Amino acid sequence: MARTYSDKRRVEFRETDAAGICHFSSFFGYMEEAEHALLRDIGLSVVMQDEGRTISWPRVNASCEYTSAALFEDVLGVEVSISRLGKKSVSYQFKFAKGETVVATGMMTSVCCIMHTGAAPEAIQIPHSIGKLLEPYVEVPDEEDEE
Amino acid sequence: MARTYSDKRRVEFRETDAAGICHFSSFFGYMEEAEHALLRDIGLSVVMQDEGRTISWPRVNASCEYTSAALFEDVLGVEVSISRLGKKSVSYQFKFAKGETVVATGMMTSVCCIMHTGAAPEAIQIPHSIGKLLEPYVEVPDEEDEE
Amino acid sequence: MARTYSDKRRVEFRETDAAGICHFSSFFGYMEEAEHALLRDIGLSVVMQDEGRTISWPRVNASCEYTSAALFEDVLGVEVSISRLGKKSVSYQFKFAKGETVVATGMMTSVCCIMHTGAAPEAIQIPHSIGKLLEPYVEVPDEEDEE
Amino acid sequence: MARTYSDKRRVEFRETDAAGICHFSSFFGYMEEAEHALLRDIGLSVVMQDEGRTISWPRVNASCEYTSAALFEDVLGVEVSISRLGKKSVSYQFKFAKGETVVATGMMTSVCCIMHTGAAPEAIQIPHSIGKLLEPYVEVPDEEDEE
Repeated sequence: MARTYSDKRRVEFRETDAAGICHFSSFFGYMEEAEHALLRDIGLSVVMQDEGRTISWPRVNASCEYTSAALFEDVLGVEVSISRLGKKSVSYQFKFAKGETVVATGMMTSVCCIMHTGAAPEAIQIPHSIGKLLEPYVEVPDEEDEE
Repeated sequence: MARTYSDKRRVEFRETDAAGICHFSSFFGYMEEAEHALLRDIGLSVVMQDEGRTISWPRVNASCEYTSAALFEDVLGVEVSISRLGKKSVSYQFKFAKGETVVATGMMTSVCCIMHTGAAPEAIQIPHSIGKLLEPYVEVPDEEDEE
Repeated sequence: MARTYSDKRRVEFRETDAAGICHFSSFFGYMEEAEHALLRDIGLSVVMQDEGRTISWPRVNASCEYTSAALFEDVLGVEVSISRLGKKSVSYQFKFAKGETVVATGMMTSVCCIMHTGAAPEAIQIPHSIGKLLEPYVEVPDEEDEE
Repeated sequence: MARTYSDKRRVEFRETDAAGICHFSSFFGYMEEAEHALLRDIGLSVVMQDEGRTISWPRVNASCEYTSAALFEDVLGVEVSISRLGKKSVSYQFKFAKGETVVATGMMTSVCCIMHTGAAPEAIQIPHSIGKLLEPYVEVPDEEDEE
């Protein structure tokens, strides 16, 4: 049974738009906040020093499905778990709900990288110590190799 | 052969992040800008008055794949076409490139809705006059009904 | 002795920029969040229904002084009080600090308005019931008329 | 007679809010865009390499006065000039207008700094070659020393 990281997030005014609802792009910010909160919760950070290298987690994809509108000052329940823990990447899944009503569900895949100033990030295998901490959040353990 | 709407978009400083690259969520803003620019280009707007009703296009989904990092002041080529024109929705596809290098590709589905103040948007069939204007951008004409 | 509304705000990743610090414009979002949190704390909202009218608080000015850089994941202490409660407007002052170090101080003046769809906001006198709730936060009571 | 950098900027949908107008904080993004466009126009960038050092321009203050609401898809005229060119800092002034109607005016002071990773920016004198390029935009030449 996978662990879920749960949080709450209020829709702020600048995150709404002239249609009177929470702007669709705001949810990607919420996902990132939730990803980082999960990492902090297990003693990690999305930007870490590790043996003199700067490790970070650029995304290779992000997606969101919107099922109901969220309005200004709505307090959304946020749930995060890991749908896949690969050798070099982590796929998170997110659920945003207003009470019992699901507002949006999202996915995001982040790749473990060494960051170089002025050059492309370099993908690396997730260090064992980090993988260990992420494992409890994995929905269904996945033993397959990353292609 | 489908029509493509093309544009250019410079990566602004506030759209970058502490990893030194264009923040992944910025691309959803770019997609929306490109969608709206396409609509303007054919004489429409994302918020329109039509027979006393306010018509707008809330999203039901949005996704982006990132293949290369974009940096501050990079000028990205943006291309938009329609991958599917449904009875009530439009699915756009987007390509962002730095010269020959594809930086990101995205998808977004917007549903034609009447907007009501303080209530959920109400999906309607895309008015014929609007559908006609969108058709030239459709990649492969799709005759199927929307479920 | 004026009341102060205090809060904490973490610097999120998308709020940083390629210079590695919290982007200067992020503080205006923080100020708005703090203004709205103060309003909620006294039972108000920045968008309220009052006798069939929609009352909101557009800004006439906003400013920020930056004295020290804030970094990703810094948790800033936020303090809000009211520097002037006018007949039609409220001037808030804000302090953002990282421990003992002041990171930024800001000011913002919001005008009490009736909002009209598709037309300019209409400034009105702050309803007595609202003014009463704001008064405890006023730094130095101000009896003067608004010009 | 000072030179003015002029541009146009459309209000994008995500820059609006549930009050139906351009969100006040969006103007700080517009100011930064205009500052950077001015710098590019004279062959500079807000992040530059100079003798092995990274030079950038963090802000010490920013302010905006709002005189009229801007709406979605309004195309604003933007004008930038320099109100003060100090030894280490540049104060820009901005005007945003919708046709003849001034929507907002702003100010922003940026300090010439060497950026250090993980440490505070270090203020330096504006290199002579850079100062020369900025001078034509100065409203009234200012001979005073910076304190």
